[in-house]
This record gives sequence, structure tokens and C-alpha cells, in this order.
Amino acid sequence: MKIAINHVTIVTMTGEVIENSSLYIEEDRIAGINILPKGFTADKTIDGKDGILLPGLVNAHSHAAMGLFRNYADDMKLKTWLEEKIWPIEDKLTAKDVYWGALLSIGEMIRSGVTAFADMYFFQEETARAVKESGIRANLCQGLISFTQGMEKIHDNIHLFKNYHDTCEGRLRISFGPHAPNTVEDDLFLEVVKYVKNLGSTIQVHLSESWEENQESMEKYGCSPTVRLNRLGVFDVPCLAAHGVYLDKKDMEILKEKKVCVAHNPSSNLKLASGMAPINELIKTGVEVALGTDGSASNNNQNLWEEMHLSSLIGKVQTMDPTAVNAHEVLKMATVNGAKALGFYESGTIEIGKKADIIIVSRDAFHHYPRFNIESELVYSTQASDVDTVIVNGKILMEGGILTTLDEEKIKFMAEKTAKKLAGYE
Amino acid sequence: MKIAINHVTIVTMTGEVIENSSLYIEEDRIAGINILPKGFTADKTIDGKDGILLPGLVNAHSHAAMGLFRNYADDMKLKTWLEEKIWPIEDKLTAKDVYWGALLSIGEMIRSGVTAFADMYFFQEETARAVKESGIRANLCQGLISFTQGMEKIHDNIHLFKNYHDTCEGRLRISFGPHAPNTVEDDLFLEVVKYVKNLGSTIQVHLSESWEENQESMEKYGCSPTVRLNRLGVFDVPCLAAHGVYLDKKDMEILKEKKVCVAHNPSSNLKLASGMAPINELIKTGVEVALGTDGSASNNNQNLWEEMHLSSLIGKVQTMDPTAVNAHEVLKMATVNGAKALGFYESGTIEIGKKADIIIVSRDAFHHYPRFNIESELVYSTQASDVDTVIVNGKILMEGGILTTLDEEKIKFMAEKTAKKLAGYE
Repeated sequence: MKIAINHVTIVTMTGEVIENSSLYIEEDRIAGINILPKGFTADKTIDGKDGILLPGLVNAHSHAAMGLFRNYADDMKLKTWLEEKIWPIEDKLTAKDVYWGALLSIGEMIRSGVTAFADMYFFQEETARAVKESGIRANLCQGLISFTQGMEKIHDNIHLFKNYHDTCEGRLRISFGPHAPNTVEDDLFLEVVKYVKNLGSTIQVHLSESWEENQESMEKYGCSPTVRLNRLGVFDVPCLAAHGVYLDKKDMEILKEKKVCVAHNPSSNLKLASGMAPINELIKTGVEVALGTDGSASNNNQNLWEEMHLSSLIGKVQTMDPTAVNAHEVLKMATVNGAKALGFYESGTIEIGKKADIIIVSRDAFHHYPRFNIESELVYSTQASDVDTVIVNGKILMEGGILTTLDEEKIKFMAEKTAKKLAGYE
Repeated sequence: MKIAINHVTIVTMTGEVIENSSLYIEEDRIAGINILPKGFTADKTIDGKDGILLPGLVNAHSHAAMGLFRNYADDMKLKTWLEEKIWPIEDKLTAKDVYWGALLSIGEMIRSGVTAFADMYFFQEETARAVKESGIRANLCQGLISFTQGMEKIHDNIHLFKNYHDTCEGRLRISFGPHAPNTVEDDLFLEVVKYVKNLGSTIQVHLSESWEENQESMEKYGCSPTVRLNRLGVFDVPCLAAHGVYLDKKDMEILKEKKVCVAHNPSSNLKLASGMAPINELIKTGVEVALGTDGSASNNNQNLWEEMHLSSLIGKVQTMDPTAVNAHEVLKMATVNGAKALGFYESGTIEIGKKADIIIVSRDAFHHYPRFNIESELVYSTQASDVDTVIVNGKILMEGGILTTLDEEKIKFMAEKTAKKLAGYE
């Protein structure tokens, strides 16, 4: 399909802001900016209505199916929250439940302008099905934990890779998900690395999310989780590490050298009182940072605009420097860096030849006036509800606030029913 | 006018959540909950569509006219920001400019469910005009600064009080605005207190917003700003103190004893890298805390939902305790406490006989599913755009997302034009 989008200001994320513009899409790619490609006749024309066109946002860390546990357990100590609420309800999850939970979060993500997400969970063939049907882009992995048969379940992850990697017109990638340094023993990490190398896959892992995790690592292994994972070869393959709340200078140097991307999840880290990741230091060190929402059980939404705003705010207060983690850096985290971290190297910027993963943000609301700095406007003023149109891989997933691939009412109904069943309400 | 609202879940903020309910309004007051008042025939019926009805939010600290400087200067050191950007542009402001700036912020506030706001600025007769026309409730004061003729301008504040206090059907209150401990000398504070006592008015003041302010106070007066203001009698009249980022145990005890309400402005405090106010300690000490957005030059919006979410998140990470500043406490800050702090004792809760200052939040979006804890839903998941209907003093200001008192297009046009003129773009 050929799509022409007119009357937009394009924020390319390659350093340009182009006003009063048109963008042309042919099939899955950006075919032109302000210059009509040869022989181009639009099958579909979208009036951008003076909105901002930018690369779709990338949610670099989530557990989509946990949308089912939104507002189920809050304001609790981590141990109580996990042991009395989250783990017991997760224990009851079936594959079908994961499908509805994933669709709930994917719907929320599309509505808020997320065009790709990274996800670690179980029953991931169901999340894959939701990705396929919804048209979103994703990098999924199976969560592997030593004390819940991780060594056996690694074969589920291999199965997932063989059946789903690079499917859905290239929208779906499969990585491996050794859960976290404090839940995965050395042997499982080594086994994962072996398969990842063999298959040419990548890794998603939680890293230094809490102070306790680091303490445990020091006691058990005599080093930080980052040093340990580096020794085990986890960073010798492309790796996306979520959280990174407790990283020292040496850890950061390792992550930089090994080109590990850190997915920063400010809402979740604050809400669980885990701490504040040293994002400004990571950026200054040269580590690539992306942004994630984490699951809705600890957030409680999949709204990346809030994470953008928050990452700048806490980056500033943490360093007591209002110039830290500025709007431009935040936008990079949420677009270019995220796309790279998920292995979607052809997304993340608005350039001719790149994949057409784009969103249009309406500037109609009061909070978009007056019009001064457009990057500040996006990071400090824009709300998720301003996202008007979402295109992934050249296909329209939302236009004028209307979802085109998902049955919104059915998803809400089924998510509600599923969640209440799991919580024992019926 | 008599209004019947059906099909809502009422969060009364007196401790009750009443499902499948109706609420009846007669003139400016709540006349019934689920029981039709005698002889009541609705002139107007609103279908709440399964939404949440709660007291309107109260923005306890703002400078509405600064909406004109949104996204004008960000990611800067405080000194550069003030001296090179904000003060020079403020210097050019005319009364008419303040009118359009105030309307811009008031429009944004109504859209996001704010039914009352506290405001300190200059040319406040223009903000009063915007309050009158918009139908919102407000407590306004003239900002008084010693080195910009504060002792003379106090008469503007008196004039404002005499002409506007308790006007607009009781929607408008006037207080006095000695700006801050580091901009107001003792003589001006004493003069303000004298007039406030004579007139039976109240005070709005900035307090301990930055570390530098406290240091300066220690050097110049040998005590904290709170101790100094207490000595000067500032807390012997009803006082609303904004920020309170640097307060010690003794300060908190004074604020508690003198019933001073602290307006917490998390976004602004973080964005300017001022610090994180000790909200959890304040609450535990028994100080009343309300919530504010501050002006849009340092926020950059008037969205109190973000402040609600943020106050809980930073309250938790600051204390490393995920049970701190829970959803219920946050809701109290944003409703009951705010209404009291502004002197609107008949607003802030849903009770028969109270003023009809209410909002209806749509629960239609994905992020409202599944339905578990309704207070978590409001604080951690709800977005400003979910606000569907806003009623102040029994009058509908927004219904189904349509503003009834404001000309949205004209306000945006004039705010844009005014801001660009001030910034020297024409």
C-alpha cells in the first residue's frame, strides 16, 4: 500500500525538524520526505492536521501479559507483593490467559504510540499470536529461572526461536530470557549463551534491579552481577539488560565496552522503591540507554510518555543538575536506542529507506500551546492521549484514535473476565 | 439548575466507594446520593457511563499565566533559566497577556479535572476575570517582592481583596502573596500579616524551595525560613506554603502546630533539580499536604494526575519503602486537603449539602482494565484525558470532553500570539 501523509512537522531523530511536510510510504518503508517518489500514487492519504510525525516509541522492557494484574496489588513491601500476591496469581495463568493479557497491553501500547516492545514472560507463543494479529513489532523471550526448571524450559525458548523468529513480515524477533542474576545459576547462563551463539539470537535479562540482588551477588560470587555476567559470556552476544539501578563505574565500563543496552524503567523502579538508576552517568559513560514500562503490575500502565517525562525529572534531581537527561536524550532513548536494542535496526528514525514505523502526535490540546521547543513539547507536555495515528511496517494500526487491527471491546471484556477468574472472584 | 447524574461509582473521599450510583445536584450543592431529594425533577440528566465520580481535583500551587512560557526554556541551570529567560520575558508582560495566559492554564486545568486552583502572580485582576468567565474556583494572590516595590504593591493586593474576595458566587477568594523568604524582607512580611489580620484574609508563600534559600536564611537570620516566618507571625493566619523541599523536624512541628498546609509540587521540584520534598515525613508528622503543578514554565503542564502519580512514586523511592505515600493519601492530597488549603471548606468531598465540585472519570480506556483497586486505578493508571465531565459550583464546565464556558480555539490562538510577541518573534 502507498500512503501519503500531509501537513506534519517531522522530527526525524537524525537531528532534523522539518516543518510543513509530507511523508510517503511504499509497502513497509519510508519512500519519500517532501519529494514524491517516482510513479507514486497514494492509495491512502492522511491529513496530519499540523501534528508531529516522529519514529514510533519503543518500549524496551515489559511483561505484557501482566496487564491482567494492573491495580491488583499496590503500596506493598516487595516480599509481600511477590509472595502473597503476584506469584500465587501467576501460578494459575494458562496460555489463553496470557493471550488476553498480552492483547490488553498491546492495545494500550498502540494507543500510546508504541510501535515495538521487548517482552519477557512465559507462554510466549500466545504473546507471539497477539503480536501477529495486532500488527505491532516485538522482541519476545521466554523467562528462564533455575529453580523453576530453567534448564528444561530452555527448550521452550529454542522452540519459540525456531518457530517465530523473524516471522510476521520481520516484525517478530525471538531472544532468550535468562531471568536475572539472582534467579539464574551459572550453568543456566552458560547453556543459554551456548544456544544464543549457535542460533544467532540475543539475550534479555534483568540486571541489578535491587540493592539486595547486588549484595547477594557479592556474597555468593564475590563480584557484582555485571562482572559475573560478563565472565559468563552473557555480554558476548547482543544483550538488553533491564533496570541497572545499582551499577558502579566498573560495571558501566563493561556495559559500554560490550555494547549492552540498559532498559531504564523509572516508574517501576520508584514504585517498588528499588531505587533510581544512574541514567545520567550511564549516558555520560557512553552506555546506550533505552526506556521501558515494565509490567503493569508494578507501573501501572504501558504509557511510555510517562517514562520519558519521568526519566528526565529523576535524572535531574538525582544529579541536582537541571541540564541532566535533557529532552533530546530522552527522545533518543525512547526511539533510536530502543529500536537498536530490540534488533530492529531499520526502525527508530525517519529516513528514506527505513521501515515505516511512525506515529503522528496531535498538537491540538491546550498543553501544546504556545509552540516553542518541539523536543520539550514532546517530552514535558505531550500525553499518551495525544497520539492520533500509528503505523508499523507500513500498515496503519490506529488512525484518528481508531484501532484498525484490534477488537477493543472484546479485549477489555476478556481481560476483565480472565483477571477476575485468576483472582478467584468467580 | 437541577442535575441528575446516573451510572457512576462514587468515590466520596469520606471513606466510601458507592457503586452503581446516582448523584443529584440542586443549584450549587449536592442534594442527594442514590435517594432522590423531595420534589426533585432534573433539568438535565447526565449518563455517567460506568465512570468514576469524585471530588474535583485542587491544584494548590500555580502561576496560571506562566502557561505562556511553556516549553520556552528547559534543561537549564536555575540561574540562567531565571535571569536570561524567565525574568526578561516576564518583564514585558502586560495585563492583557496575563488574561490569555491564565485562560490557557485554566482551560488545561478544567480539561484535566481541576475544579479549584491557588495562584500567585501579578495583574491578578486579569486572572480574576478569567476565573469569573471560566466558572472555575480559585484563590488568587498578588506576588509581593521586597526589591520590586513590594511595600507599595501590597496596596494592589488590598485592592484585589476588596474588589474580588468572595465574588463570583463564592468561587473566588483573595489571599496575600509575600513571594518567598529569600525575596521578602521582615518589614514586608510584618506589613502583610497586619493587613491579612485586619481583613480576615489568608497567605500564600513559597517556602524552602531550594537548599540555597535555606542556607541564605541561616546566614542572614540565623534560623530556617520556617522558624523565621513563624517568628514574624506569618503562620498566625491561615497559610498555604508551596514546596517545602528542605524542612527539618523542628520546621515540620511548627507547620503542624500552626496548621500550615504544604503544597507539594513534585514535577517542578524535580525539573529544576531543587530536590524532593519529605512528603512521607510531613504526612507522618501530621502536616496537611496538598498538591500543585507550579507554573507551566517549570512543569510543563497543569496536569494534576501526573503530580498525583509522581508524589507517590518519589515518596516511595525517597524512603525506600513501597508502602509510603499510598494511593489513598495521594487522593486526599489532591482533593480534601487542597480544598481546605484554599479555604473552600465546602468542597473536597462528595457529601449531601457540600458544594457540587465534581468530576466524572471515564473508565473506558484499556488502562482502566481489569478493575481491581479503584484508588490505585485513579492514582497509578488514570490519565488526564480520561476526565469526561467537570462541574463546579453546580455548573457544568465540561461535558463529554466539550468545554461549555471557554472558546478553546480563541484561547489557543491568542495564547500563541501573545507568547510569540513576548518572546520577540514578531
